[in-house]
Amino acid sequence: VVLYDRLVAEEILHMCRQDAERIHVGKQRSNHTMPQQDISRLLVELAQQGKRVLRLKGGDPFIFGRGGEEIAELAAANIPFQVVPGITAASGCASYAGIPLTHRDYSQSVRFVTGHLKDDTCDLNWPHLVEEGQTLVFYMGLISLPVICRELINHGMSADMPIALVQQGTTPNQKVYTGTLATMPALIASSEVQAPTLIIVGEVVRLHDQLKWQ
Amino acid sequence: VVLYDRLVAEEILHMCRQDAERIHVGKQRSNHTMPQQDISRLLVELAQQGKRVLRLKGGDPFIFGRGGEEIAELAAANIPFQVVPGITAASGCASYAGIPLTHRDYSQSVRFVTGHLKDDTCDLNWPHLVEEGQTLVFYMGLISLPVICRELINHGMSADMPIALVQQGTTPNQKVYTGTLATMPALIASSEVQAPTLIIVGEVVRLHDQLKWQ
Repeated sequence: VVLYDRLVAEEILHMCRQDAERIHVGKQRSNHTMPQQDISRLLVELAQQGKRVLRLKGGDPFIFGRGGEEIAELAAANIPFQVVPGITAASGCASYAGIPLTHRDYSQSVRFVTGHLKDDTCDLNWPHLVEEGQTLVFYMGLISLPVICRELINHGMSADMPIALVQQGTTPNQKVYTGTLATMPALIASSEVQAPTLIIVGEVVRLHDQLKWQ
Repeated sequence: VVLYDRLVAEEILHMCRQDAERIHVGKQRSNHTMPQQDISRLLVELAQQGKRVLRLKGGDPFIFGRGGEEIAELAAANIPFQVVPGITAASGCASYAGIPLTHRDYSQSVRFVTGHLKDDTCDLNWPHLVEEGQTLVFYMGLISLPVICRELINHGMSADMPIALVQQGTTPNQKVYTGTLATMPALIASSEVQAPTLIIVGEVVRLHDQLKWQ
């Protein structure tokens, strides 16, 4: 039996055994098909029924994927499991957008944070996010984009800092919007941007014009 | 023709066309088989000879992989290219060590830095690395491990903060050492740790005991 998320591509599902039962447990922002703890419980129940269970996630299970919570339930129930790493959204979107996340000349470190803010408040540690030579990647940041741009500027980042928003990255519908912290909110407001998106902030975004190949 | 790095597994090379020419350009710390700019130049030359060139790297080309520098040469020479993302060492080692890089209860962000310090000096921005709710991942940090532990403590991180060193992660030779910032340097000094290694610092390391499955 296969439990799969909303963002798992049809082509990937086709690689599963054709006679395997499929259960869509996919999430959408504030609209979970199945709450996280029900997913974990279902994994345990199916395994205890003697079934061979595949939990298929988009991206990497251990980077904003809540894989740790799911296997904790398995471990607590003494159910053996394996974890297969995946291409996290930052790697996939960066590659297909032609934006290196690190680069000798521009960025010696990269940081992944989530822009999916609880209660629409913004509890990120802004002073720590503003640092030279660092690339910032925001997962699930579309709705928070105006806040992200505003707070980074308020905390000392240059308003001219390049920013890219990658829409539906790695898919045939990929679209890359680039601008600066100052210009991006208006650009996005006037565009029909659709989730899922990934936001990249940093000097490396300057390389997109030269390195884009899609 | 295939240009491959030292850390590309034999099993991966076997997946290449058997009649393809193979060139080992692999790097080792302070012992590059071929300097980076020679690799970039060779890519261009081979392509200009009309050859179909595969540049095979370990990990992800855009995260401490210098992929951006190599494709910049290609772009400058008007050579078309594609970039295929890879499983970066942090994802691979985390999955096979049972250490989630983010977790609702412990870490809301993850940061990748390189512990490969120029001239054996340490120019990391230590105050910014010390932050609650953040997982730190050091690539190539074995030699710098004592400095990393000392400086993180000096800049305010708890000496009891858990740290893991993953040796030869994702391979059959994987070994995971865990301790605290205070205990790790002595533990490593008395062990026969071999590169490549990846270092994970943060509360998430506590989950290893429960979630390790290898």
